Amino acid sequence: MSANPAAASYLGGVRILDLTQFEAGPSSTEVLAWLGAEVVKVENPKGGDPGRSSFRGAPGQDSWYFLLFNANKKSVTIDLKSPRGLALVKEMAARADVFVENFAPGAIERLGLGYEAVRATNPGIVYAQVKGFGAGSPFERGLAFDMIAQAAGGVMSITGESDGPPIKPGTTLGDTGTGMLLAISILGALYRRKTTGEGERLELAMQDAMLQYIRVAFAATATTGAPAQRNGSKLLSGKAAPSGVYPCKPGGPNDYVYVYTSRANPAHWRRLLEVIGRADLIGDPRYETVQARAQHEEEVDAIVAAWTRQHDKREAMRLISAVGVPAGAVLDTLELHEDPDFEQRGIMQVMRHAECGDFKMPAWPVRHGGRTLPLAPAPLLGEHNEAVLGDWLGFGVGEVAKLRQDGVI
Amino acid sequence: MSANPAAASYLGGVRILDLTQFEAGPSSTEVLAWLGAEVVKVENPKGGDPGRSSFRGAPGQDSWYFLLFNANKKSVTIDLKSPRGLALVKEMAARADVFVENFAPGAIERLGLGYEAVRATNPGIVYAQVKGFGAGSPFERGLAFDMIAQAAGGVMSITGESDGPPIKPGTTLGDTGTGMLLAISILGALYRRKTTGEGERLELAMQDAMLQYIRVAFAATATTGAPAQRNGSKLLSGKAAPSGVYPCKPGGPNDYVYVYTSRANPAHWRRLLEVIGRADLIGDPRYETVQARAQHEEEVDAIVAAWTRQHDKREAMRLISAVGVPAGAVLDTLELHEDPDFEQRGIMQVMRHAECGDFKMPAWPVRHGGRTLPLAPAPLLGEHNEAVLGDWLGFGVGEVAKLRQDGVI
Repeated sequence: MSANPAAASYLGGVRILDLTQFEAGPSSTEVLAWLGAEVVKVENPKGGDPGRSSFRGAPGQDSWYFLLFNANKKSVTIDLKSPRGLALVKEMAARADVFVENFAPGAIERLGLGYEAVRATNPGIVYAQVKGFGAGSPFERGLAFDMIAQAAGGVMSITGESDGPPIKPGTTLGDTGTGMLLAISILGALYRRKTTGEGERLELAMQDAMLQYIRVAFAATATTGAPAQRNGSKLLSGKAAPSGVYPCKPGGPNDYVYVYTSRANPAHWRRLLEVIGRADLIGDPRYETVQARAQHEEEVDAIVAAWTRQHDKREAMRLISAVGVPAGAVLDTLELHEDPDFEQRGIMQVMRHAECGDFKMPAWPVRHGGRTLPLAPAPLLGEHNEAVLGDWLGFGVGEVAKLRQDGVI
Repeated sequence: MSANPAAASYLGGVRILDLTQFEAGPSSTEVLAWLGAEVVKVENPKGGDPGRSSFRGAPGQDSWYFLLFNANKKSVTIDLKSPRGLALVKEMAARADVFVENFAPGAIERLGLGYEAVRATNPGIVYAQVKGFGAGSPFERGLAFDMIAQAAGGVMSITGESDGPPIKPGTTLGDTGTGMLLAISILGALYRRKTTGEGERLELAMQDAMLQYIRVAFAATATTGAPAQRNGSKLLSGKAAPSGVYPCKPGGPNDYVYVYTSRANPAHWRRLLEVIGRADLIGDPRYETVQARAQHEEEVDAIVAAWTRQHDKREAMRLISAVGVPAGAVLDTLELHEDPDFEQRGIMQVMRHAECGDFKMPAWPVRHGGRTLPLAPAPLLGEHNEAVLGDWLGFGVGEVAKLRQDGVI
């Protein structure tokens, strides 16, 4: 049974055996849990998913990091180093619809839980794996974390100031960006399986996943024959002036507004001139065309900034976007956290966690039938030992107690 | 029939009526096409999806940008401003399984193709929409492009040097990042629909989608009560020295290697010292613990950089990752484009396009049963008018010719 009855109708009845940790794997199975699948994390009885102690909140409690990526899941503790524990996991794999793992290269096979082994007892399994580098890649044995994938997958090469070093974007695209793509393929495989009963093996490398998110940079390379370049907050794809972040009042580190005037819509520039009180420049040949503005980009930027500096970033966004010119205040994570708008719309929800207390976090952002999917707490370590071993394997309370006594779970 | 027989088994028989343009919507429907759905783009007979002329390759040809986000789809031209054209689209909507649009706010309703109107003739429809800002948000009427979503969705606030302005990551996360999340919800809805026949409305705002990719920054804010800060290429989450990009030979703009030593694994630092020929520093109290290295971060970075400067970035990556320390060369888009590894593994594939010629691009990166899904060409404008109007609506060749003659298609 899902921890999330209201959403259970999407993937209700789908059992996912989740041997993932940290973020790339867990972000993938979490969205399946949000859609109502029963996602059971298998964790080491000694501490569990190492994500539980990353970015720790209070000592001895699960971290915010863990809560973020494990909402709506269940947790079972099983010692994979004990023969009985391993046998338990094999029995669970035989009863699962989906198996997901993101251990270091070769680890799952050494445990005897590789694809061929699992398929032997469960031919219909959808067996999904995340690694840092693809099988057959020169680096297939290499360890990867988020930042390694972002470096080797091209993301960093196109992020930063034009005269500065590559920068890692603040997003954990190497992890969550990978997890989202894997979730799509798992769902595709489940859809087919519903008709055919066929399972299959899915493999995704974090480096490879990055290419999906920087495809526009490959368009630039195809056009120029050169590497796509970093360009600060401006476009990779040639000049569209004005375009970029402009400083706002009162001048704090995130007091900026992004203003974009599309090259395809000449009305943007004229509307912008009106809203910033420079209608006198409408028709001025120095700025009238896309080409002219590109040649005078510094002047154009100065004209826009002279106005934005007099305004709060939200006010600037409101005024500019009201006349049909794309504008976005650079909002920081505290502003987003505190803005009641996201909570009212269900984009941010409060996880009510038995030990960690209330934690407001981004929930699944798609509205289904006018509402976002409900958020349920991330599980305590081993919280569902009795329930899951009973439900999946038919174990009684006494048998589970014995397993615990013997240190297997 | 899908343009992609080998993949048709995943979403074979699923008909998607695709009224999207540019990237957020098209990236979403493209992955459904890769999985074998029949995705039919409805385009303006005069020029079609404006993405066809963005980042143009050769004059008069479809752009690389368009090819990237419209692989494996079909194209039908219909003039939505003509009553007969609009009636055609309504008939197609009545026969579709999924309807997707990402017009400016209010536009689809003004066309008479809003959710209620489509549902009236097709109660089982999965009706999906992308907007810049969510319904009920203070900015719900605002236009959004990729960079606006990245500004207002927090991404830019955590990207950049610690003493510099916010930077837009080179990824088009506001577009493709949004598209991937929408695809997940569409697949969830399709999975349920296969059993229940029920459709529903899905809505995703680009601003809201960004929160999903910066969740770790919210963990930082929950811990500190302050906005998560920019930190160049280093972690948002406190110091892990050494960690970051280190310069390599011969000193070009992307000659860097990312090196990461996990705070959870003290062996990383010692292994790194050995590989860089500084085993003499093993046990040195200035560098032995995570805390000590954080205090001496500049010295630590200098020690690592002294070695990396003597090595090519790929060689540095190879040597460091071979001893079990996470390392990633900063690869640029030309290097990724030219590396035969990606083409051999099917991560990059060549689109053989009738007018644009051969175009190598990132394909869907998940391996299904050991192979990636095949790439088929993006459609020419109106290429499938006869086939689709015949197949979906039963029109004969003569009827289609008449529609063309009358300027409806």
